[in-house]
Amino acid sequence: MAYQALTEESVVGYVKGRPALENIFPPDCNVAVKEVGDGNVNLVFIVENRDDAQHSVVLKQALPYLRVAGESWPLTRERMRFETQALLTYNELAPGLAPKVYDHDNEMSLVVMEHLRDFEIMRKPLVARKRFPRFIDHISTFMARTLFFTSDLYLTRVEIKALQEKYVHAQLNKIQEDFVFTNPYMESPENTWNPEIDAEVKAVRKNRELKLALVEMKEAYITHKQALIHSDLHTGSVMLNQERTCVIDPEFAFFGPIGFDVGAMLENLILNFLSHYAHTLDRKERSSYQQYLLELVRGVWNEFAGKFDGLWVEHNCGDLVQSAYWQFPGGDKAFAEYRRRYILGLLQDTAGCGGAKMLRRMMGIVSVWDMTSIKDLKERAIAERPAIRIGSRWLLERRQITGIDDLIGIVEEETREVEAS
Amino acid sequence: MAYQALTEESVVGYVKGRPALENIFPPDCNVAVKEVGDGNVNLVFIVENRDDAQHSVVLKQALPYLRVAGESWPLTRERMRFETQALLTYNELAPGLAPKVYDHDNEMSLVVMEHLRDFEIMRKPLVARKRFPRFIDHISTFMARTLFFTSDLYLTRVEIKALQEKYVHAQLNKIQEDFVFTNPYMESPENTWNPEIDAEVKAVRKNRELKLALVEMKEAYITHKQALIHSDLHTGSVMLNQERTCVIDPEFAFFGPIGFDVGAMLENLILNFLSHYAHTLDRKERSSYQQYLLELVRGVWNEFAGKFDGLWVEHNCGDLVQSAYWQFPGGDKAFAEYRRRYILGLLQDTAGCGGAKMLRRMMGIVSVWDMTSIKDLKERAIAERPAIRIGSRWLLERRQITGIDDLIGIVEEETREVEAS
Repeated sequence: MAYQALTEESVVGYVKGRPALENIFPPDCNVAVKEVGDGNVNLVFIVENRDDAQHSVVLKQALPYLRVAGESWPLTRERMRFETQALLTYNELAPGLAPKVYDHDNEMSLVVMEHLRDFEIMRKPLVARKRFPRFIDHISTFMARTLFFTSDLYLTRVEIKALQEKYVHAQLNKIQEDFVFTNPYMESPENTWNPEIDAEVKAVRKNRELKLALVEMKEAYITHKQALIHSDLHTGSVMLNQERTCVIDPEFAFFGPIGFDVGAMLENLILNFLSHYAHTLDRKERSSYQQYLLELVRGVWNEFAGKFDGLWVEHNCGDLVQSAYWQFPGGDKAFAEYRRRYILGLLQDTAGCGGAKMLRRMMGIVSVWDMTSIKDLKERAIAERPAIRIGSRWLLERRQITGIDDLIGIVEEETREVEAS
Repeated sequence: MAYQALTEESVVGYVKGRPALENIFPPDCNVAVKEVGDGNVNLVFIVENRDDAQHSVVLKQALPYLRVAGESWPLTRERMRFETQALLTYNELAPGLAPKVYDHDNEMSLVVMEHLRDFEIMRKPLVARKRFPRFIDHISTFMARTLFFTSDLYLTRVEIKALQEKYVHAQLNKIQEDFVFTNPYMESPENTWNPEIDAEVKAVRKNRELKLALVEMKEAYITHKQALIHSDLHTGSVMLNQERTCVIDPEFAFFGPIGFDVGAMLENLILNFLSHYAHTLDRKERSSYQQYLLELVRGVWNEFAGKFDGLWVEHNCGDLVQSAYWQFPGGDKAFAEYRRRYILGLLQDTAGCGGAKMLRRMMGIVSVWDMTSIKDLKERAIAERPAIRIGSRWLLERRQITGIDDLIGIVEEETREVEAS
């Protein structure tokens, strides 16, 4: 079927015509359709079999353009193919931790997947101080499994090259490359920032050491093909409830540094932490929730690191190092030391990437809802100023980081004066 | 034409039937053919138009197997396509510094190229203490141009991904990956070494810090896609005379770390340096030539670094950093500092890769002719022992290296006792 944007009307005929969906939408069933997307980039339909309340799906279709900051840019619809194949990979490697794919159609640039009913996009409940007891376990499992099983630690070189060939999309990658690592820190028309922090933003843009660090991180992001990363793994890409956690929207997935994913997750938790200076005025309540967020940061890293290491010990079958290489007196300990150094490198990349991403949210094309929902710009600035300081230090001090408590320590140091005020 | 291995007889009809060669081999000319390859991997024919002494070419055809160490491994003929496209890239980026390609035929897995008459493979004249006054200039230009112009410093992301897609050959890469970075340092049936240095070889294989460093370098070699590297740039891949220098045999070319090429070149000059403890018994003569070799090492690095930096300043059009990024007070100096750090990183990679390659030549699948031509094993050991010490130190001290004199200093320190004996 040649590409055409679906409508609430045409979706009905479309889903009934798909063999893969025939159990969900038998020919004579009643179908209800509702478009719920924001219409910027994709159409998102919730499609329900009215005769059977269990049966509803989400149909997501790419539009051939991207509308951001009032401008319309052409954008290849091919991104839906990347999103679909990444979701299929997640279904295989981390079942239950991403929406299940029921059907996909590359011609039509669409995917039909599990309807995550009663899930919330994580950003909003975090602002509302909700707690998710299974989040640490779920997200750390998701990251450990999807990243380890697509790395040279597990796959053979032939397997990894075959997988890499499926994820070459220079145009999409370039959006992330430039919007995270360079454009926010120079004159670029799409940048926006809170005028209250204008001085701090301008200081970043002429801070030589920061700019050197940012371009070093960009070089690594572009050239270090470590594993299949999600590449946009912030709290807006997580849907969850008390029982389940699902990662969505992997259209930027490509081979890059593992720390970029972990850094995105931790950095977004920190931005949420800071946003509570405006969202939660009761000191005790704020402090309690902020402590909870720091526990999430610590827990996500520690469980990720432990699970990643555990998978490595259990499935050491990649072409990078054969076990025969470690067969010498003390070889087991040397292998453990290599894993320790590798995972420490992931933490340092996490600091560098997370720091860069924290900065870009303060001065680039798009901030985060945690911050933009603070309407008073002076109050928003109180939350944003430490983000600039923390992001800068994560970035500049990344090579001295030896454990997650170093990253948390920087957060605590840079918020002390906010606490005192 | 379906693949068939050519013979001295069938080559005549083949070249006369190729439109691209019709000026060199007109229909009625007399053609003389001689097969000069070693028959291990490729057929190599010198094909001459007897009516016109100016007109001779080399026709190189891949055989579908690799014969090394008595064993026959199947090997994809596709490698000739990689070699051909790399040679074409070199013809474009560094004209005159690789044999000119006249014709190629991917079906037949062959390339027809300039016959480098009156050139020598560099290894042999270096053993004979010949000097090449233009070598530093030529090889540094070759490396600077082929590496810079295929990196993210010059190309856009879309261009670089298109180029990368042409160089995906997991099977060939894996040969280099394993034979340089892991197999030599563990039990592996293809390894050979001089029994006189058995103790030193076994010490390397159980040296924990060395093995950790080697696998770190392997990880970078596999995952760091910095530029299109030759990936086998030793003195056996250089043909030269007093006027010209040509790089040959780029069948392993792929996207990897720049320091791997530079390291291969410098390391082979050092191995030649060491081989003169056996080849050149006259102390004065040896010392003079060894000094010359160290000047080559220093000159190749310094000129490479200077030319690479110069190209960067002149053609700063890659997607990695736009010049607008450096537009702030002191931005010019910051850009210069970024280049300095980047190029220092190349030198540290050069040390690590060169050190690994020096070690593998002492205990892996194949040594270098400079060493194997020393028939007395005790004498050969005198040359080889410092190679193990120097290779180990280049590798272990790579992150402390700040200039080429550090690498040369290690060579001088580790040969002091040989000098004294």
